[in-house]
Amino acid sequence: MKALVYHGPGKRSWEEVADPTIEKPTDAVVWVDAVTICGTDLHILGGDVPDVTPGRVLGHEAVGTVTAIGAGVQTVAVGDRVLVSCISSCGSCRYCRQGSYGQCLGGGGWILGHLVDGTQAEYVRVPFADNSTHMVPYGVSDEQMIVLADILPTAYEVGVLNGGVQPADVVAIIGTGPIGLAAILTAKLFSPSHIVAIDLADSRLKAAHEFGADVVVNSGADDPAKVIAELTGGLGADVTMEAVGRPETFEQAVQLVRPGGHVANIGVHGEPATLRLEDIWIKNLTITTGLVDTFATPTLIELVASGRLDTAPMITHRFALDEFETAYDVFARPAETAALKVLLTASGLQHDSK
Amino acid sequence: MKALVYHGPGKRSWEEVADPTIEKPTDAVVWVDAVTICGTDLHILGGDVPDVTPGRVLGHEAVGTVTAIGAGVQTVAVGDRVLVSCISSCGSCRYCRQGSYGQCLGGGGWILGHLVDGTQAEYVRVPFADNSTHMVPYGVSDEQMIVLADILPTAYEVGVLNGGVQPADVVAIIGTGPIGLAAILTAKLFSPSHIVAIDLADSRLKAAHEFGADVVVNSGADDPAKVIAELTGGLGADVTMEAVGRPETFEQAVQLVRPGGHVANIGVHGEPATLRLEDIWIKNLTITTGLVDTFATPTLIELVASGRLDTAPMITHRFALDEFETAYDVFARPAETAALKVLLTASGLQHDSK
Amino acid sequence: MKALVYHGPGKRSWEEVADPTIEKPTDAVVWVDAVTICGTDLHILGGDVPDVTPGRVLGHEAVGTVTAIGAGVQTVAVGDRVLVSCISSCGSCRYCRQGSYGQCLGGGGWILGHLVDGTQAEYVRVPFADNSTHMVPYGVSDEQMIVLADILPTAYEVGVLNGGVQPADVVAIIGTGPIGLAAILTAKLFSPSHIVAIDLADSRLKAAHEFGADVVVNSGADDPAKVIAELTGGLGADVTMEAVGRPETFEQAVQLVRPGGHVANIGVHGEPATLRLEDIWIKNLTITTGLVDTFATPTLIELVASGRLDTAPMITHRFALDEFETAYDVFARPAETAALKVLLTASGLQHDSK
Amino acid sequence: MKALVYHGPGKRSWEEVADPTIEKPTDAVVWVDAVTICGTDLHILGGDVPDVTPGRVLGHEAVGTVTAIGAGVQTVAVGDRVLVSCISSCGSCRYCRQGSYGQCLGGGGWILGHLVDGTQAEYVRVPFADNSTHMVPYGVSDEQMIVLADILPTAYEVGVLNGGVQPADVVAIIGTGPIGLAAILTAKLFSPSHIVAIDLADSRLKAAHEFGADVVVNSGADDPAKVIAELTGGLGADVTMEAVGRPETFEQAVQLVRPGGHVANIGVHGEPATLRLEDIWIKNLTITTGLVDTFATPTLIELVASGRLDTAPMITHRFALDEFETAYDVFARPAETAALKVLLTASGLQHDSK
Repeated sequence: MKALVYHGPGKRSWEEVADPTIEKPTDAVVWVDAVTICGTDLHILGGDVPDVTPGRVLGHEAVGTVTAIGAGVQTVAVGDRVLVSCISSCGSCRYCRQGSYGQCLGGGGWILGHLVDGTQAEYVRVPFADNSTHMVPYGVSDEQMIVLADILPTAYEVGVLNGGVQPADVVAIIGTGPIGLAAILTAKLFSPSHIVAIDLADSRLKAAHEFGADVVVNSGADDPAKVIAELTGGLGADVTMEAVGRPETFEQAVQLVRPGGHVANIGVHGEPATLRLEDIWIKNLTITTGLVDTFATPTLIELVASGRLDTAPMITHRFALDEFETAYDVFARPAETAALKVLLTASGLQHDSK
Repeated sequence: MKALVYHGPGKRSWEEVADPTIEKPTDAVVWVDAVTICGTDLHILGGDVPDVTPGRVLGHEAVGTVTAIGAGVQTVAVGDRVLVSCISSCGSCRYCRQGSYGQCLGGGGWILGHLVDGTQAEYVRVPFADNSTHMVPYGVSDEQMIVLADILPTAYEVGVLNGGVQPADVVAIIGTGPIGLAAILTAKLFSPSHIVAIDLADSRLKAAHEFGADVVVNSGADDPAKVIAELTGGLGADVTMEAVGRPETFEQAVQLVRPGGHVANIGVHGEPATLRLEDIWIKNLTITTGLVDTFATPTLIELVASGRLDTAPMITHRFALDEFETAYDVFARPAETAALKVLLTASGLQHDSK
Repeated sequence: MKALVYHGPGKRSWEEVADPTIEKPTDAVVWVDAVTICGTDLHILGGDVPDVTPGRVLGHEAVGTVTAIGAGVQTVAVGDRVLVSCISSCGSCRYCRQGSYGQCLGGGGWILGHLVDGTQAEYVRVPFADNSTHMVPYGVSDEQMIVLADILPTAYEVGVLNGGVQPADVVAIIGTGPIGLAAILTAKLFSPSHIVAIDLADSRLKAAHEFGADVVVNSGADDPAKVIAELTGGLGADVTMEAVGRPETFEQAVQLVRPGGHVANIGVHGEPATLRLEDIWIKNLTITTGLVDTFATPTLIELVASGRLDTAPMITHRFALDEFETAYDVFARPAETAALKVLLTASGLQHDSK
Repeated sequence: MKALVYHGPGKRSWEEVADPTIEKPTDAVVWVDAVTICGTDLHILGGDVPDVTPGRVLGHEAVGTVTAIGAGVQTVAVGDRVLVSCISSCGSCRYCRQGSYGQCLGGGGWILGHLVDGTQAEYVRVPFADNSTHMVPYGVSDEQMIVLADILPTAYEVGVLNGGVQPADVVAIIGTGPIGLAAILTAKLFSPSHIVAIDLADSRLKAAHEFGADVVVNSGADDPAKVIAELTGGLGADVTMEAVGRPETFEQAVQLVRPGGHVANIGVHGEPATLRLEDIWIKNLTITTGLVDTFATPTLIELVASGRLDTAPMITHRFALDEFETAYDVFARPAETAALKVLLTASGLQHDSK
């Protein structure tokens, strides 16, 4: 088959590799109908994730059709149309028993396109298939489904649920790249009174407004603290979310929250931040961090299936599978291309089962 | 009457001042039977709390008898024996309605011995008396009760409840001064499997063991991370509490917790700490801070009254009210005096209503 | 002043009575701008609430302007435009400290138009004014606000919050009178995948659909169990709400819920129901009951003020204050008049502060 | 091998049957070291559980040693000493993903000794071995462990956790058979101020006192409502638990709880009860039911292993495996034998791995 193979920092190619097979009784093999590229894939190509070794097939998000299953697989059958989740779950360890699949101690967690070959390929072997795939409901398109593999559950679990968003809250989201926009989209599920989007790029803030932020602040031009103070009688936001991954935006999230509020870190960080304990020890804050667990994926699937959540606007560009090189280029230059998520499909056409 | 008056950094005296009177309809005046000194009082005397102006009567903890009430007071009557809480609550603002009295926006919060005259006196005016005092149950001594004014609810709310201690948890408490010991005492209410106390002084660790820590670690001699790893299969503690107020101990609390665990800051901090987001963004941590709200004081009172919680060991030294100067000296030198909490009583004798 | 006075079962009149005055330091007097009639008022007139004695002014819902306050009132000032809540709160008892104002032990709870004179009058004395009124935000009309005095917080707290509605849930609401419609309106705040409304009257089900139920079932014609089974793979609803007040509809609510689901009783009942423990002991059900506490009223006000919740469709008929007799007649015959909530205003016109 | 076989109502025998083998890749076979008898086994023998067909090996609780595993078993190895839980879990269905194993839709739930052959035998096939067994910690005896297979997690999850027992609560437990005593034992983990045990037999109440109830009421002689009113200022218990399985005791549990309190049903019921909605609709009650899920078994194991929970007093009689007939007789006549749980061991001696 063909696959997108990592060959060390800066090097990747769409090339012929061996077809995956069932290696363990709990494996499935899935024929990839649709796949996308994650910001993490760019980090891998940048050489920032040394656990990924040359020769690895990248990718941890897919929608596809099951072509083979191991003897121990119970709930997935050949021919099933499934979402392949970014997180694999052994289903039995302490963390998996509590729905914290991202912290799996039994060989799961984030392994696809990281420690084992991934989804940017014609076929993918999916370990722990019973607990690492989700049936695609009848009538839901690949395009709606693919963003439920990683970005939507990440924003929802690590941002919205960790942040404890409640009806009437004022929610401030710092960073309006794809993950920040997904946080806006899913925060709305709990009916906050205001969603304040903060960024430095007006084009992104325009997208944030379209995704549902009723207040947008270009922090290069206006002071977010002042805007939020006006909305909250000077108290600060009920919930702030960091969706950039930089010390300064994390520190801003801590500054913008009210006493008793929640700071939910979603961003992937490479450096430490300063925590002003001398200011916040007295403020009853809750600060959370997290890798996605995907325990909420069934909830998001049901919301999409019932028409309560429209994920289609997350997809901005569409390609055929053999156009991976181009797709990476488009996705890596969002300032120029306005790319959010790019979709690659086996058919080269948007695949819709309706 | 006589009172302990602050006269600027380093200066205090037990001297004659005007008797307090009812100033607002919601006030009560309480005759002080028993009072203690808080670490915060030492900070004030050190000049670290500039809101406290010369001439202020110090103190925010007392047990006493009501001698006068305002026209709007509903639940407190003259002659009632009450606990005067460190936190006053207006009872009506957004925060008070949610039990977050420490963040009161209506003129309450920590005001006694801070923004208004306090309890280290023969009499004290207590604003918002209905929501800022608690009836002392029949049969409970001043000595058992006095530590419920501040230190026990602080450790319980900000440490144990914020930390979410659950049965079978491994709980690590860094710092075994009075507040750390109170955290040990109240963590036991939720039946953790192990309480690990960490400090640099063996004398304090001995006290920690007596208060209920089954594992004690002198972090000058042994590595707490190694000890906790042995108890937890290498994962880390379920809950860590910082009870010192230093950046390095906060950072240690973050290092010692397991993925998915809770870090509860109890310490009062004067400097920022470094938050290693590059390590913890992926670890599903919850970090909390907080000033005591005293919403849990009724719970603690009931536990003392029913004999489920024995707070008496917190009191190590006893004085008469006019010995305040000596009491401050003893309390300020715990390394030499082994003082935890000092009790000053109007009678000069331990007062027991049994 | 004029007021609507109860004179024993079946007897009421709009007549001259003495003006209310400040009786306690915590009272306020409010000039009534807008008032409504509750189903409970009909029960009182039916003689079902013997605590209401002849001579009592009825009514427990109003929007008005403060004309006098007692000496102990802190947060409400003369001239303030306020919502008068159906529940009064002493603010200091065990229940009020936990936000459970409906269970107040300090002389509050449901007292207006019940144990003390109520709001169906030109003026009303409001006990415990600080904790029993809510400021009307600038720009919110009386018409939007009046339903936040009772029916909306009842449906939201006792139905939606007790029921634990979560995103993607299938919610079944039995009974689509005003309280059932308010439950539909507020359940949407948590983004359920489906809201199933069940009733016997097609006209009500039409209203239910307009308020947001995507599935409506006339249980005289179709089997709700079958409809819900189709939506849920045979499991049953995640949450069911009883909004009628009859044993048979309560029993239906218990039958329609899935294992592990929630049954929230909102209805006011006069007879016992049969609980089929032999079927449900094994099903991990949670069944809740409750009188409204109004702790969520500030949340609902903020949602209305920010435009996230539109309560206007609850008001179907408008009258002047001196048309109370007609308004009661219209409200008492909903099958003919299609009345949901009726609004009576001092001006006789819809009052809008914009 | 030998096993205890059900032969229709009233008939059982310890007889030769075929050895169990691995039937599915997720199975394990366990050699039974220790086993007990459950009240449910008596119901089966009484003919009350028609799903159990003649020829079935009874029993759903065991401690043993793994002798064989299927190809898909990941976490259990031959030679492991394990607890066999009363609940089997597929690990992948909607309920299992949420820790609600008792409601498993994937072929698990309560199946051992019910729908498949059980543990009252020399060997047992354990389906879904990864999620249905728990490693026995080094140093914990069979005797301490065996009650964690069913009765302790049932009392803890369905009684204590569902009831939401909190520090300082007044907890009333109706019925002091084995399950009621287990509820007393595990309620203590949350430090209630008082545990009130209610029964008709003084001998059981004596046991209740020994297990930790500080107040015992013989409801044939004294009025529990009066006793609880005295403890709670007339309000009622914070939490009541029904541990009998009769309509009248369930109704008593509802009567004894305070407004805002929790009623946790633990009992297995065969008849409906009357729910006095006309009294309780206004009382903010939460009523829960449930089959054990065993999600809390790891917590209980850790509490036993760390010495925080002593389960040994639950075992009153000890037998060799081939004495099953006698053991059933003793267990079935607790009024005469004072039996709580009976232990049968392969060695015929109490087995202790220390």
